[in-house]
Amino acid sequence: MDARLADVLTERIRAGDRERVLALVSELHSADLADLIHHLPFADANALVGWLHPEQGAEVVAELDDELRGDLLEDDGTIRISELLDAMDTDDAADVLADLPQEVAQEVLPRLEDAEEVEELLAYHEETAGGLMATEYVAVSQDWTVAQATEEVRRKAIEVDPVYVVYVVDPREKLLGMVPLKRLLLAPASSRISAVMDPELISVDPHEDQEEVARIMERYDLVVLPVVDEGGKLLGRITIDDVVDVIREEAEEDIALMSGSGPDEDLSTSVLKVSKGRLVWLMVGLGGALLSALVINSFQAVLEEALVLAMFIPVVMAMAGNAGIQSSAISVQGLASGRLWPGELLNRFAKELLVALVNGIVLSLVFGVLIVVLQSTGILVLDPGRSLLLAMTVGMALLAVIVLAATMGAVVPLILERMGIDPALATGPFITTSNDIMGLVVYFLVATTLYL
Amino acid sequence: MDARLADVLTERIRAGDRERVLALVSELHSADLADLIHHLPFADANALVGWLHPEQGAEVVAELDDELRGDLLEDDGTIRISELLDAMDTDDAADVLADLPQEVAQEVLPRLEDAEEVEELLAYHEETAGGLMATEYVAVSQDWTVAQATEEVRRKAIEVDPVYVVYVVDPREKLLGMVPLKRLLLAPASSRISAVMDPELISVDPHEDQEEVARIMERYDLVVLPVVDEGGKLLGRITIDDVVDVIREEAEEDIALMSGSGPDEDLSTSVLKVSKGRLVWLMVGLGGALLSALVINSFQAVLEEALVLAMFIPVVMAMAGNAGIQSSAISVQGLASGRLWPGELLNRFAKELLVALVNGIVLSLVFGVLIVVLQSTGILVLDPGRSLLLAMTVGMALLAVIVLAATMGAVVPLILERMGIDPALATGPFITTSNDIMGLVVYFLVATTLYL
Repeated sequence: MDARLADVLTERIRAGDRERVLALVSELHSADLADLIHHLPFADANALVGWLHPEQGAEVVAELDDELRGDLLEDDGTIRISELLDAMDTDDAADVLADLPQEVAQEVLPRLEDAEEVEELLAYHEETAGGLMATEYVAVSQDWTVAQATEEVRRKAIEVDPVYVVYVVDPREKLLGMVPLKRLLLAPASSRISAVMDPELISVDPHEDQEEVARIMERYDLVVLPVVDEGGKLLGRITIDDVVDVIREEAEEDIALMSGSGPDEDLSTSVLKVSKGRLVWLMVGLGGALLSALVINSFQAVLEEALVLAMFIPVVMAMAGNAGIQSSAISVQGLASGRLWPGELLNRFAKELLVALVNGIVLSLVFGVLIVVLQSTGILVLDPGRSLLLAMTVGMALLAVIVLAATMGAVVPLILERMGIDPALATGPFITTSNDIMGLVVYFLVATTLYL
Repeated sequence: MDARLADVLTERIRAGDRERVLALVSELHSADLADLIHHLPFADANALVGWLHPEQGAEVVAELDDELRGDLLEDDGTIRISELLDAMDTDDAADVLADLPQEVAQEVLPRLEDAEEVEELLAYHEETAGGLMATEYVAVSQDWTVAQATEEVRRKAIEVDPVYVVYVVDPREKLLGMVPLKRLLLAPASSRISAVMDPELISVDPHEDQEEVARIMERYDLVVLPVVDEGGKLLGRITIDDVVDVIREEAEEDIALMSGSGPDEDLSTSVLKVSKGRLVWLMVGLGGALLSALVINSFQAVLEEALVLAMFIPVVMAMAGNAGIQSSAISVQGLASGRLWPGELLNRFAKELLVALVNGIVLSLVFGVLIVVLQSTGILVLDPGRSLLLAMTVGMALLAVIVLAATMGAVVPLILERMGIDPALATGPFITTSNDIMGLVVYFLVATTLYL
């Protein structure tokens, strides 16, 4: 259905049939329209966005991917851009402005209705509470009556939407508490706000990291979270829809790190940009693999004596990689969810060691049995006198490699976290590569000791 | 701080000082208390949960991990359990009940105040809209006035919390529309609901998958979503806090699949259960690695002739693995976010091929240069007459392997999706293993053709 609508739209756009196009898209939700625009050829998308009425245009532009949005707005004049930004909430306007080229942003900013607020928001890092908050909210005094507060909600009804709670502030805008809309609806009109407000209130500092903001809203089931400065002054509010996007983005970022794809890679990213993002990781992988190659090279004498050992290189590498990724994933998630307490790190470590021992022993035994079976069926032809010793050698190496790799996997994310580096990095090509190298060293050392 | 509180609590619990313990925890948010309980020794956690007042106990128990909750409730009598469940929303009560042993659940269910509703909820699969929805909501008739609707909100104020919207239904409970709380607050008391209601409404079927529910609420920035049956009858509502949990869970599930850790693994899961969950994947990996070993074994004659080829086995495996994971991750995410349209699969495929070609060529060249550098510095000692041919051979094999692995990585998730299997599986050990095998075959074939 979407694809068909895209075809019809493209045709009407090319025919220059503005009225019909606007009629076709007027009923669409901005999220659906933004999605559709991502699938249109660029020239058609550009024409369509240019035709949209400012209100719909603003909503749609706020929903677009950064890259496409930048390309679409590039040719627009400052008047059109400021018209679109004025129709957005301040948080969206600041986000869009931050992604525009410096010269354009500097021209657009002073023209905005809320120029001052948007400029303040721009000062915060994009991935902090300040970067997420909007300055649209309803604030009332605690001396007011419920009727006066309701009137304030009415006055701000268009600007602030949706409203979940009304914030209570003192004359210096210090946050004192809040009144959920339900309570405002149910309380007698003449009640004082101070009598119905909820003085206990979770709030965040504007410099708080967005992951922590998400964690707080998730943990306490909040749909809106006030942002206050050190003095307790109310600066803005963060709504759950923005935080849902943060949670999704952070998850995608972790997956990108784990898989070594570029952090900003998207279906619409260009081939060269995708190549560049991935090449960084492939180079890291290549460097690591060359180190593995040098390890094998330095044990060339061992291989010359027993070429059969080459056969099990993939087994050692695969098991080192798998065991390391498994244990690092659970460390990374424990850290990400805040469920792993610093005092419990030793427990965590001991548990990984136990799991690795159990798995290492089971796998070594299974491996030994498989080798015997493969040989007895003739699939694998080994020196009959030494095949048991070979199975034991590789089995012992496997056990050692699995225990070492799992331990590294559990510990490296904790070290990275302490160094202020995203621990998800440890679940990716980085840990796989270092475990490969370590695995091969262990394998050849064990083989030299036991088999030769 | 949390850890210190845990110590104080443990001490007071063991001293049997119930009053002091309840005083210590009474001010804690249920999410914080649940977190704390996860870090207490089991016996102390059990005593503490048994002491809690039903309201706080219900909130805390609903927040616990399934496993710990089951263990804690095991010894409780049906009276205590039904007391706790009665203090929960129906969706939480159904979730808790579903995790209890069959016999216990059957004894508890008939004792519940909302037995009928909970039983209906239990009939839905846990991971569907029906499994997420609560049957607590405010419904009004379109003939009512705003004052009457407000009165209905008041009547249900304790049972339904929070309230974001009031649903409008006909006498047969068919959903007609909704009125946001803000509009109810601002409209004149004598207005008809039919005049202020919003007739356009996004809703879902109770059998809709929870991932799709999350996608809809995320896409349209909803905080609450009504669930209706085929006839349009209102069955319940899903609130955003439950969906936030779904998004987090799905992301963790994807990461677990990618890393091959057990799907239900948590920091508190026991060693044997963790071992079992991971062993499945390690076995798959071991099986694949043995196939790789057989590939090498079948090319043993090649290795005997040119042992130097063994050195680059890790390079081929690492590049096949990395390139495959990179391209599969982006396919998996495209599918998960719904941004990848079926009609665009061919484009996606062509793009991956281009990226792989670019990266393959760059990496092969870099590899060749590195080999020359390593040899000229004496770190790597190669047969001088054939080192260029060797670099070319491995370079050609790398190019072929990267292109094949990236293509497989892009396509396999799409095939899995069509077969109804979670495509995240393809980003995990599965694709790495199959790419390893394929990479080795290609490598030895290229080497046989070019180098020998």
